[in-house]
Amino acid sequence: MADEKKLTTRAADFSAWYNELVLRAELADYSPVRGCMVIRPNGYGIWERMQRALDDMFKATGHVNAYFPMFIPESFLSKEAEHVEGFAPETAVVTHGGGKKLEEPLVVRPTSETIIYSMFAKWVQSYRDLPLLYNQWANVVRWEMRTRLFLRTMEFLWQEGHTAHATHDEAEEEARKMLGVYRDFMEGWIAMPVITGQKTESEKFAGALRTYACEAMMQDGKALQAGTSHNLGQNFAKAFDLTFQSEAGTIEHAWNTSWGVSTRMVGGLVMTHGDDNGLITPPLLAPIELVIVPIWRTDEEKATVFEAARNLKQSLGAWERRAPARLRVHLDDREGIKPGAKYYHWETRGIPLRLELGPRDVAANQCVLVRRDTRAKQVASLDTIGEDVAELLMRMQADLLTAARERMDARTHRGVTSYDQFREIMDAGGFVYAGWNGDPASEARVKEETKATIRVIPDPEFRSAEAPTRCLVTGEPAKHEVLWARAY
Amino acid sequence: MADEKKLTTRAADFSAWYNELVLRAELADYSPVRGCMVIRPNGYGIWERMQRALDDMFKATGHVNAYFPMFIPESFLSKEAEHVEGFAPETAVVTHGGGKKLEEPLVVRPTSETIIYSMFAKWVQSYRDLPLLYNQWANVVRWEMRTRLFLRTMEFLWQEGHTAHATHDEAEEEARKMLGVYRDFMEGWIAMPVITGQKTESEKFAGALRTYACEAMMQDGKALQAGTSHNLGQNFAKAFDLTFQSEAGTIEHAWNTSWGVSTRMVGGLVMTHGDDNGLITPPLLAPIELVIVPIWRTDEEKATVFEAARNLKQSLGAWERRAPARLRVHLDDREGIKPGAKYYHWETRGIPLRLELGPRDVAANQCVLVRRDTRAKQVASLDTIGEDVAELLMRMQADLLTAARERMDARTHRGVTSYDQFREIMDAGGFVYAGWNGDPASEARVKEETKATIRVIPDPEFRSAEAPTRCLVTGEPAKHEVLWARAY
Ligand SMILES: [Zn+2]
Ligand SMILES: [Zn+2]
Repeated sequence: MADEKKLTTRAADFSAWYNELVLRAELADYSPVRGCMVIRPNGYGIWERMQRALDDMFKATGHVNAYFPMFIPESFLSKEAEHVEGFAPETAVVTHGGGKKLEEPLVVRPTSETIIYSMFAKWVQSYRDLPLLYNQWANVVRWEMRTRLFLRTMEFLWQEGHTAHATHDEAEEEARKMLGVYRDFMEGWIAMPVITGQKTESEKFAGALRTYACEAMMQDGKALQAGTSHNLGQNFAKAFDLTFQSEAGTIEHAWNTSWGVSTRMVGGLVMTHGDDNGLITPPLLAPIELVIVPIWRTDEEKATVFEAARNLKQSLGAWERRAPARLRVHLDDREGIKPGAKYYHWETRGIPLRLELGPRDVAANQCVLVRRDTRAKQVASLDTIGEDVAELLMRMQADLLTAARERMDARTHRGVTSYDQFREIMDAGGFVYAGWNGDPASEARVKEETKATIRVIPDPEFRSAEAPTRCLVTGEPAKHEVLWARAY
Repeated sequence: MADEKKLTTRAADFSAWYNELVLRAELADYSPVRGCMVIRPNGYGIWERMQRALDDMFKATGHVNAYFPMFIPESFLSKEAEHVEGFAPETAVVTHGGGKKLEEPLVVRPTSETIIYSMFAKWVQSYRDLPLLYNQWANVVRWEMRTRLFLRTMEFLWQEGHTAHATHDEAEEEARKMLGVYRDFMEGWIAMPVITGQKTESEKFAGALRTYACEAMMQDGKALQAGTSHNLGQNFAKAFDLTFQSEAGTIEHAWNTSWGVSTRMVGGLVMTHGDDNGLITPPLLAPIELVIVPIWRTDEEKATVFEAARNLKQSLGAWERRAPARLRVHLDDREGIKPGAKYYHWETRGIPLRLELGPRDVAANQCVLVRRDTRAKQVASLDTIGEDVAELLMRMQADLLTAARERMDARTHRGVTSYDQFREIMDAGGFVYAGWNGDPASEARVKEETKATIRVIPDPEFRSAEAPTRCLVTGEPAKHEVLWARAY
């Protein structure tokens, strides 16, 4: 372990800081397969808690889970013209199976619209069979040349929702509803504020009518697309003959939506909250919320402190909260390691609270609690420790969101009308709300010149009080106010 | 829906009965990809509950979850000689990615020993880093020519545990412990009794030192291998240089175990409990435990009954049991469908309890409860309905295990010494405990002549009070008592 060496600071090299942190906190590791990573238990524990929370939210909104084959006949991808254009260049292709060359190659799913809607077509006859509200937790593969741990890997884990509806409006409502679920999750659980809105034509999902997205700001001022929700219109229904008999007796094509979030969110969590000492995990997503570090010198002190520490772990672990159930407590009872080294170990790994317990603390029926985010220390009585810990965790969860929101606001610029000023902001990192003439050509020009893209046409609540009147690029009348940023 | 047509009976054609049931209960469906199936929400709901229960058991025994790449470099598979011989003929191979031919083909994991132990080798330096107790939930692919829904599919879902230990004995203890966890789960949750024991050399996992298995008896008297646990010895540690410095300072190879269960267990559940009316789900694994069917003729009756039914769903759903949490209740409030058709619908799908509620029931503050397994009816007061339902579900869970055990015992034969009699039993379906000379040649001969295989050398508690002295096949002195059966 190179634990002694300090992390590169965010200021010195944000990208190096991120990679070092992910490896040092043992969230993930590089694998022998180019572009694929291993998600280690510390990282997977966060992902598991994300899954559980999202799955509960999906079920509460009426969705059911299912599982569809990972292999997709190559011909399926081609049935929706825009879809194949978008995804075919990124696929991994199975050409041999069981020692023989396949008649038709199989594509490893980059996303599952084609295979899922081909099955929906088999199951749906009448409007009575609608809506279908499905979700699947799965791995997908997109052949990426430049990969980054969690942010962009060849194989990644995600959920993909797929629904079918009788009308456009119902599908639209579903796509918007799931965008809202994502936002609630990202703000409520990851403590990561997001801007929601619609993607432009050039940034939308291949095969969608409209794509909505949640965009978050990382600590370097760059945007992370953290989740998308698509109104697919009737594009896939037409490609796969997904039809139904309407109440009036006519045969109609169904309307689909799809929506997904992935292990990329773990990278978003790191880049939203981490500091120069390592990871900071929002308590709701932390596999361990509190670590107890016993402190002792003599054998006698050790006996006293260990006994108190074990009792504390027991009583804290049994302490019930309204939500989300019991406290997740770890006792670091390793011997031969100094308390300071333990503090460092758990700070790197982002455990929200540390409880220090020495012989004098035990004698005084107290302990010291240290918050990971602020590093603030407080003395707490062992009599009320359950309440104090639960209270601190709740406050930390809320404070992390507030701090992230303040950082985002500080780097968000409105009323920018000079393209030069815009370029400076993009170089420094930040969000710019500005007017756009609606022309893909001006969008492409900015992307080429500044590497910035239109993240979204923001939803009303995020728009400026005074709408921009001119296009930032061309000076022509603005058609939309849009959010510009460089993105991961 | 062909719901009107009766299922083929088990007696008439067990195999047709199974396939029809799986499709009719909407547990799974065939997909456009040969050998791959779609797990539909009814089937996936059972799998989700299996996952949750097993995951809790793995965590309670100190294991953590992680995720490793699905693609394995072809060269990795070859590093363990027996392993590659066993798995190479069954692999799906990715030869192209991102539009280009790959330098080294990638195999889609048939199992993950190779990729996981290559990573363990990177992480383990000292005996202090051991044991590693990992599990992963994943999809795997084995190229099968003859596939059956749930029982044998090209892609399937499973968990694979992978551990590394400092000594042989620790690894052995782990392999046996996880076999015990599997047995507890299969009997406690699936209500499926199993025989545990060791596989013979010819039936063990490719690359293992020893393989242990849980074998269940299906209603046709055939065996289903429902889970396996392997002591891998140092085979993979040697192939992947997984070494550690011992406490004494020497460099040693680690000892590994791996163990897995899959969606195949859903097929086992069906073939253990299903009857000629359809699926029977053990309550602990049922996504819906109780379905309320309101009965009415007039609009007035409908209003009364619906109000009572909704209140009932509400109060039952809120009714707290000690474990496993709240009652899972569904109200079938569809209109235009007769009660009888609803009964049929939910019976096919295996919902453990049906609650019938008509206007006279409401007036009398009562309802009728019908068990899916025995079809026994009982009148219950609405005042104590929560307790009654919880009690019935518990009893049904226990009764299903008892009934399955009785069926297994009835078709289990001991003291068989005539090979002719043995062949008759195999033709009829059943388990035979008999002596074996320990020679792979006699094992192979029986397999060829009768299609029966040695399922396990049973653990002591399953062995006959009087051990057989002669080999069933050759008449030579018996080396082991073994369990013979035809298997899925
Ligand atoms: Zn059509
Ligand atoms: Zn070696």
